[in-house]
Amino acid sequence: MGFETGAGLSGQVTWVSQAAPPSAQMSRGDSVPFTIATLVNDGAQYDAMLRSFQEGGFTGDCEYLALDNRAGNCFEAYGGIRLVLERARGRHVIVCHQDVRLISEGRHALQARLEELEIRDPLWAVAGNAGGTGRGIAKRISDPHGEDQRSGDLPAKALSLDENFLVIKLSSMIAPSADLAGFHLYGTDLCLQARLRGHSAYVIDYHLRHLGRGTVGRDYYLCLEALEDKYARILKPGAIQTTCLAPMITASPWQLAIARLGRFRKKLKKLRKERQKQAARRAP
Amino acid sequence: MGFETGAGLSGQVTWVSQAAPPSAQMSRGDSVPFTIATLVNDGAQYDAMLRSFQEGGFTGDCEYLALDNRAGNCFEAYGGIRLVLERARGRHVIVCHQDVRLISEGRHALQARLEELEIRDPLWAVAGNAGGTGRGIAKRISDPHGEDQRSGDLPAKALSLDENFLVIKLSSMIAPSADLAGFHLYGTDLCLQARLRGHSAYVIDYHLRHLGRGTVGRDYYLCLEALEDKYARILKPGAIQTTCLAPMITASPWQLAIARLGRFRKKLKKLRKERQKQAARRAP
Repeated sequence: MGFETGAGLSGQVTWVSQAAPPSAQMSRGDSVPFTIATLVNDGAQYDAMLRSFQEGGFTGDCEYLALDNRAGNCFEAYGGIRLVLERARGRHVIVCHQDVRLISEGRHALQARLEELEIRDPLWAVAGNAGGTGRGIAKRISDPHGEDQRSGDLPAKALSLDENFLVIKLSSMIAPSADLAGFHLYGTDLCLQARLRGHSAYVIDYHLRHLGRGTVGRDYYLCLEALEDKYARILKPGAIQTTCLAPMITASPWQLAIARLGRFRKKLKKLRKERQKQAARRAP
Repeated sequence: MGFETGAGLSGQVTWVSQAAPPSAQMSRGDSVPFTIATLVNDGAQYDAMLRSFQEGGFTGDCEYLALDNRAGNCFEAYGGIRLVLERARGRHVIVCHQDVRLISEGRHALQARLEELEIRDPLWAVAGNAGGTGRGIAKRISDPHGEDQRSGDLPAKALSLDENFLVIKLSSMIAPSADLAGFHLYGTDLCLQARLRGHSAYVIDYHLRHLGRGTVGRDYYLCLEALEDKYARILKPGAIQTTCLAPMITASPWQLAIARLGRFRKKLKKLRKERQKQAARRAP
């Protein structure tokens, strides 16, 4: 699929056709392979993270974005990541905590895992190193809970991902909710957003160290309840009126069946009326 | 909010802070004010559309993208618009039919309507000239159904938008579903995606002519049922397991209340156990 500049009325039109090869200039977010974005409130921690990434091969052609919270929490995570995604130039956007350290695996390993994932499921939009799959937790990590942990058959499709390390495919155009804020559960929100858009999320086999242990405090509960409330609010079933016909947006098979039956009856009624009209015309 | 290149470990880090003014270079999709994207299967129709846009002032600094369906339907609308959004350089991306014509209002009128909308609701993500509001149809259009039509108190929040003319705010990062295809109802899908992300959609007071009358044929029904099936599938209530605590993703207030009661009981149980342990330690 590619872009070719044709001679439109003004010479300004770019004709997009399936035939031509993709032109690099036309593509956004393909200018660097990785953007690595981090909320930073501790410069020393971030320096150590940076050092491990650069030793791991994320060097010259990578973009590093640091959301500066050193003088106080200017950025919360949901809004910060939206800002990052809006501005990132990387094909893949890594969003990670300042307290992760690359250890055994570097850039080539990550690149290889992402290429494998791309072949397995081109619709993947987010990947991480730990998450819920619906049948338990899948993970590959060293953290205060244990060294060299591995669980689940990786890559494993995920319903949620832990926030210590996330990779977002920029071209999927998924992003955190604009009506949520805080420092927790944006991994879950990203997975939900990916699913709602028709994309998927995965735990991949990429091993790094996370120095934090993940605490569930008051802030976590506030984010949890805000997330639940948000999705409860927007998932309320109801007809979405269009200018033509109203689709029934609902998870209830009953509601859907009733709406479709109603549409079918309307169609029959319309047909019957048309036939009566035709018959009336034919009658002497 | 702006970007300043700080002296990181490698000189590669861009520190993002709230203080500095936004730097134009860092921002994607701000390089031109408008991208105008159209699925084209009739070159003469498109030429006439182009002429009306250029007479309306969408000239030099605008980007025109034409998805080339002249030799057959290479592009369906959902995928075509995703491709457009991935590559567009415009702050606002107009997606319109080849059979719309600008008449009384040009670029300055549209710019003014969008600026007013931005002040009223900075979270707007899609705008159009006709759509369902939940309390009827709002519109501002001339088409085969009537000249100079106006209904609803504009701008009106919309649950769906007609596809003849859509404006998407690129920075909102909303896009059509990756698991839908076809030539109908992508305006409704975009409104749903906007809402799910926490954004909103509007019918605005922008008057143009649409030469088509919008037909509801077999293709329309196929798109309608695919849309309903998709949202029914993904809106099924169920717990999303996280690595810490599982939020309950559901629209049912009962399910939500039961899940929260369960969490509260777990918390109490944990507290009771801790107290028993403390008591046991204190006991001789």
